[in-house]
Amino acid sequence: MKRAVCLLSGGLDSSTSIAIAKEEGYELYALSFDYGQLHRRELEAAKAIADHYGVREHVIYRLANFGGSALVDGNMEMPMDRDEEEMTDIPISYVPARNTVFLSIALGWAEVLDADAIFIGVNALDYSGYPDCRPEFIEAYQRMADLATKKGVEGGKIEIKAPLLHMTKAEIIKKGMKLGVPYELTWSCYKGGEKACGRCDSCGLRLKGFREAGYSDPINYETDENR
Amino acid sequence: MKRAVCLLSGGLDSSTSIAIAKEEGYELYALSFDYGQLHRRELEAAKAIADHYGVREHVIYRLANFGGSALVDGNMEMPMDRDEEEMTDIPISYVPARNTVFLSIALGWAEVLDADAIFIGVNALDYSGYPDCRPEFIEAYQRMADLATKKGVEGGKIEIKAPLLHMTKAEIIKKGMKLGVPYELTWSCYKGGEKACGRCDSCGLRLKGFREAGYSDPINYETDENR
Repeated sequence: MKRAVCLLSGGLDSSTSIAIAKEEGYELYALSFDYGQLHRRELEAAKAIADHYGVREHVIYRLANFGGSALVDGNMEMPMDRDEEEMTDIPISYVPARNTVFLSIALGWAEVLDADAIFIGVNALDYSGYPDCRPEFIEAYQRMADLATKKGVEGGKIEIKAPLLHMTKAEIIKKGMKLGVPYELTWSCYKGGEKACGRCDSCGLRLKGFREAGYSDPINYETDENR
Repeated sequence: MKRAVCLLSGGLDSSTSIAIAKEEGYELYALSFDYGQLHRRELEAAKAIADHYGVREHVIYRLANFGGSALVDGNMEMPMDRDEEEMTDIPISYVPARNTVFLSIALGWAEVLDADAIFIGVNALDYSGYPDCRPEFIEAYQRMADLATKKGVEGGKIEIKAPLLHMTKAEIIKKGMKLGVPYELTWSCYKGGEKACGRCDSCGLRLKGFREAGYSDPINYETDENR
């Protein structure tokens, strides 16, 4: 049975991505990161999703961070209410080299497991403007990984799979609904509140996605207007 | 003043590499990793070298490991007394994706520091056959890093500098002696003993390098025959 390491933040995208890995017949190994994110609730969501999909193993990997992002530094102001045009700029919620680091830890684990693939839920259409969510980044990462690993050198491959890369948020949600992803268990909001704020980039993209997909988002928001 | 994050294991290569960064006029930030290596002595060596070079900051970054290498798993037998021909095979001291992970953490820190370069002491001539020590790996990593980072996207660059890449061990030692690298403070041996074993890949390459460079290695070995 082929194996996949699935990056799982507990958000909408990574939860859909692991559902796709399951659909494709991989044995699942979930990898989440505790990097000091203020929205630690997402780690609980990651556990619930990993349980739901019956992963073989779920590692929550601790990483110290060097600051430099509103996702880890409570003194930096989280961008709120940004419109789509503004989201083409890289915001201060960008975590330096985050996907590079996450994929690299995943690559190490994948080598030890002799896994065939790494699933990552990045998408380059409805996203916050982060450089490490673009197709050219994923391609360059794959090329580097082929040269970096024992498996790559010996003629094998650890495939970096980003099945959501070219999908809009609405398309992702439609795909996930078809696969039965339990979106009520997921957590996307960058603020660590009791309910999702509905106003950060991540909530904004999620709500727009559900609206455009024609579904109602099953999680609770601070204000009903945001639904 | 331009800044560099210098990967510093405490061994001969990384200590020469940080000396070169200093010679080139960079403000130095040293980064070492505690990844469960059995030869933890190298971290003490890293501290001594960082002190010697008066780095602005020295971070010892903790990383959990997934096993899979004789450098972290005491039950795996360390390859000893390998000759040069055997060293073209990837040995079980290979740590899965190690340089990929180290460079990625360095990349994140470099972005936060707004650093201009990352120094890594890999070399592709007298080495153990690790895939992530080859020029094609460093090139592919640079390309990926240019696409991964905010700095890269905005027209800047974090340069991956591997000044030892095309040097033999003897050339590295000659360069280091010229720069006054305190090799008596460094630690290369893969075994965590009181004295260097003189027989693992790392000791073997080091001893051969000193011999060919025409210097005597200032550290102590278990047996005098190894000098």
